Amino acid sequence: MKIGILGLGLIGGSLGYDLRSLGHYVLGVTRQESTCNRAIALGIVDQASVDMSLLATAEVVFICTPIGMIIPQLQQLINYLPATTVITDVGSVKAPIVQNIAPVWENFIGGHPMAGTADSGIDAAQRHLFMGRPYVLTPDATTPKTAISVVAEIVRSLGANIYYCPPEQHDRAVSLISHLPVMVSAALIATCMGETDSQVLQLAQNLASSGFRDTSRVGGGNPELGVMMAQYNRQALLSSLHQYRQRLDELTNLIEQQDWQGLGLKLQSNGEDRPKFVD
Amino acid sequence: MKIGILGLGLIGGSLGYDLRSLGHYVLGVTRQESTCNRAIALGIVDQASVDMSLLATAEVVFICTPIGMIIPQLQQLINYLPATTVITDVGSVKAPIVQNIAPVWENFIGGHPMAGTADSGIDAAQRHLFMGRPYVLTPDATTPKTAISVVAEIVRSLGANIYYCPPEQHDRAVSLISHLPVMVSAALIATCMGETDSQVLQLAQNLASSGFRDTSRVGGGNPELGVMMAQYNRQALLSSLHQYRQRLDELTNLIEQQDWQGLGLKLQSNGEDRPKFVD
Repeated sequence: MKIGILGLGLIGGSLGYDLRSLGHYVLGVTRQESTCNRAIALGIVDQASVDMSLLATAEVVFICTPIGMIIPQLQQLINYLPATTVITDVGSVKAPIVQNIAPVWENFIGGHPMAGTADSGIDAAQRHLFMGRPYVLTPDATTPKTAISVVAEIVRSLGANIYYCPPEQHDRAVSLISHLPVMVSAALIATCMGETDSQVLQLAQNLASSGFRDTSRVGGGNPELGVMMAQYNRQALLSSLHQYRQRLDELTNLIEQQDWQGLGLKLQSNGEDRPKFVD
Repeated sequence: MKIGILGLGLIGGSLGYDLRSLGHYVLGVTRQESTCNRAIALGIVDQASVDMSLLATAEVVFICTPIGMIIPQLQQLINYLPATTVITDVGSVKAPIVQNIAPVWENFIGGHPMAGTADSGIDAAQRHLFMGRPYVLTPDATTPKTAISVVAEIVRSLGANIYYCPPEQHDRAVSLISHLPVMVSAALIATCMGETDSQVLQLAQNLASSGFRDTSRVGGGNPELGVMMAQYNRQALLSSLHQYRQRLDELTNLIEQQDWQGLGLKLQSNGEDRPKFVD
């Protein structure tokens, strides 16, 4: 199959590696000539160009740009494509993407591969990035069955685990397990750095260990990515933050009231519930 | 030197291994006969007993019981000791311990080795547990210089990095970097499990990945330990929780007001501040 990739960063590049290994002919489009050359040299694509018209013959196009570029890039891209081309994207928020694209391109299905590394850019691309990872597809009532099955078949061949859901459900789920943790973790770092007694602050910095390290990790990550999540998934994230504040207040109240049995029961439930999410 | 250890769990047992390796004669006291036998079989102690009188000839005694037992055990222990015996403890909160013990035993210095594993009990004990780890000593104005230097010398020989501070400073620092993360992380698990839409909850459980895993780790830990921290370090933890809530509200307000530049600046500061605490 002839497959196009628009945007050759970590996700687009990793897709290219795997799709070529699977025998597909891969066309890559990116904004910089130097990235085109790099993509060919690395064996990520068969052909590369800064010109979107290269994708005119692709049967399926994956849009792998940063989330803020997906809609504007698609609006340009569709000038070059026949109506039969199936388009999908890899944005980490789905409702605003699907709502904007579905009306202008029938053969579109939103997607979100839950895979990544701390690095970005084409040199961070790697083979088998999607193997064993969740890959969410978010068809809506208007999505053609053929578009769903074409993209699902490719995703399955990457070794990913496919989940189907409406875009809004996806966004609420990732606001809980991905976007909320960033804000929760960010507020922890800000609290510790905000300590006004310089001796206590110095001591906290000396004593911080694995508990602080793990809990603060995602809050110390890429700020552009954090803003992007908040911007595109604002409503779901605000709702998650609101729920979170209530849960935090409950714990605080138990401590204020010295209700140690109540606090113990809450912490025990947490210990039992966590394995329902992660090993 | 003849060194006593009261309580042969993870910390007491690990101390025993290292102190014997360093050539000390180690006396262990624990509540169960079977633990005495195990401690001797493992080579953790030279002699073991369920009877505190075994410690009468020790020059230094480390109290390594769970934090709630430290004060009552010390009150019994001192009936068997000459006034010259130096006593230290390994409790993870210091002010309430030091306030209670200093008036009844002059040669006392509080301590807190910041080392541990997820496991507990004598079979979790390991050699070199304290190597390269922080070990806080919390002398107050009344602590005899000799008591400080005797304990400091032993701690240094374990390969630990010693920090000295008043008990209250220790408790505020650990409330920030150790106890607050537990509550922050616990509230995250409770928020996700509290999702009322069962399809979103199921999806969140399927999609949860490294971000959720790391941020939720300490909140899903030992509930007794979490309650203990809150109980013994209540005031400092409540103050940290209060500060945390303000930082979280600031982030929430930026998102509500769609102040993406302001949010970006906060997240960027966090990324710059986190390495001041952990690598």
